[in-house]
Amino acid sequence: MTQDTDKMNPFEQKNQQMEHVKQRMNKIKHKIAVISGKGGVGKSLVTVNLGIGLAMKEETGKVGVLDADLTGPTIPKMMGLKGEKLEVGPPGIFPADGPEGIKVVSMDFLLPNDEAPVIWRGPLKMGAIRQFLGEVAWGELEYLLVDLPPGTGDEPLSILQLLPEMDGVVIVTIPSEVSQIVVKKAITFARKMNVPILGIIENMSSMVCPHCGKEIEVFSEGGGKAISVDMGVELLGSIPIDPRVSSASDEGVPFIVKYPEAPASKSFIRIIEKIEKKVKKE
Amino acid sequence: MTQDTDKMNPFEQKNQQMEHVKQRMNKIKHKIAVISGKGGVGKSLVTVNLGIGLAMKEETGKVGVLDADLTGPTIPKMMGLKGEKLEVGPPGIFPADGPEGIKVVSMDFLLPNDEAPVIWRGPLKMGAIRQFLGEVAWGELEYLLVDLPPGTGDEPLSILQLLPEMDGVVIVTIPSEVSQIVVKKAITFARKMNVPILGIIENMSSMVCPHCGKEIEVFSEGGGKAISVDMGVELLGSIPIDPRVSSASDEGVPFIVKYPEAPASKSFIRIIEKIEKKVKKE
Repeated sequence: MTQDTDKMNPFEQKNQQMEHVKQRMNKIKHKIAVISGKGGVGKSLVTVNLGIGLAMKEETGKVGVLDADLTGPTIPKMMGLKGEKLEVGPPGIFPADGPEGIKVVSMDFLLPNDEAPVIWRGPLKMGAIRQFLGEVAWGELEYLLVDLPPGTGDEPLSILQLLPEMDGVVIVTIPSEVSQIVVKKAITFARKMNVPILGIIENMSSMVCPHCGKEIEVFSEGGGKAISVDMGVELLGSIPIDPRVSSASDEGVPFIVKYPEAPASKSFIRIIEKIEKKVKKE
Repeated sequence: MTQDTDKMNPFEQKNQQMEHVKQRMNKIKHKIAVISGKGGVGKSLVTVNLGIGLAMKEETGKVGVLDADLTGPTIPKMMGLKGEKLEVGPPGIFPADGPEGIKVVSMDFLLPNDEAPVIWRGPLKMGAIRQFLGEVAWGELEYLLVDLPPGTGDEPLSILQLLPEMDGVVIVTIPSEVSQIVVKKAITFARKMNVPILGIIENMSSMVCPHCGKEIEVFSEGGGKAISVDMGVELLGSIPIDPRVSSASDEGVPFIVKYPEAPASKSFIRIIEKIEKKVKKE
């Protein structure tokens, strides 16, 4: 924040913030938002593993992740960054350093403890998001992934309005029909906001029983494919359920790092290749 | 809505709405909100099955469910009520009739199609919730269950502020540590709002492989118990994962009706008995 902010009226402050957002975001080549219609489909898990997968390919410090889920931030826990605090210097707020040199910002770093809820109404949330985009010293990034809270409410709206030149959104869903209804809304939402849709990732597709090796369709099957055909959006890939996904997240080690040979990791790697090609327009 | 609403200024309109909420809510004996920190933990599934389970025990038309998830309403699909429209008469908006004589209101009934997203900021959402509570002809109910969207944002805030004499909230979680962090926030949120916490329901606890019968911990284990001890809140029960849960939801038949003998259904029935005792202060 500049020193003369105090003398400004709220309108001028907001304008200055918007100018900062523009300056910071101009230094970031590719901006991708990860959205879902419904919560709990593994959006944060997907963001973490896409981010880490990209960071493994880029130079250190060239990939950033913004956890824009203000009321339920889980990215720090999944990346082993719980308890980190953000430091502030002349260039702005410094992101935390995550695995593979990834830069991470989350509301979680600003909360006094795990139990503290963020009980904010819309306008406050928008202010926080403007700060995350405009006051954080992201530096020159190749990729910034933004993990949006589920739904089509204030935070997704704010982010999409603040980043008009975004490369696109990735939509995460699970195979069930119930979740398909909500994902359709997310697709329409992105289209109404004129944001390109990079594709759909189906998470929690069938699992293999660790005891007998047979396949179990825990959340029905084929939902990702159906919605892809229905809405004319590419299915980037399916991530099978693996009980180790939950335990790796609990331990704070990204799955793709801990189990690179697992089918879920291989699926992430193929999806990352597709996304790279799309945003680089190869 | 009364006929002279047009002549009122927005402030008078809001006051009149609040008065309507009070009148309608006075006729409902027990009001319970179902909340979660994180999305996708099965909050709507729990609401549906608790509601149906209560409706089976009460006279027809004495249990209502309000789907207050404005941006991702899934209750109608799970109850086989997709495509229903709400009718309006002199007493107000009539709820839809669901299985077991349950009364249901959802934003979904007001949307033109599945693809339509509700892109609203906070204040509009609050107005919608006031209408759902104040303009719907719920009648004299024994129970009203309110399915809140995940998190601690605008909708949960509005509902809890509009229903100060609520019996309490039921908190839904899954066993993973990642979800525990978020559920702690939900508990603190309820406490800050001075709403009694009826207890925690752990959903998606271990599953039994349909092929070999062995147990699989898909989302880690023991999270519900841990949080119950940690935060001093009763664990009302655990609902095991059952692939038939997803397919029953997709078909629109509440699980507890379709598979009354399943362990998940028996667990719901025990939880309902505990909730009844708590709100009736037996």
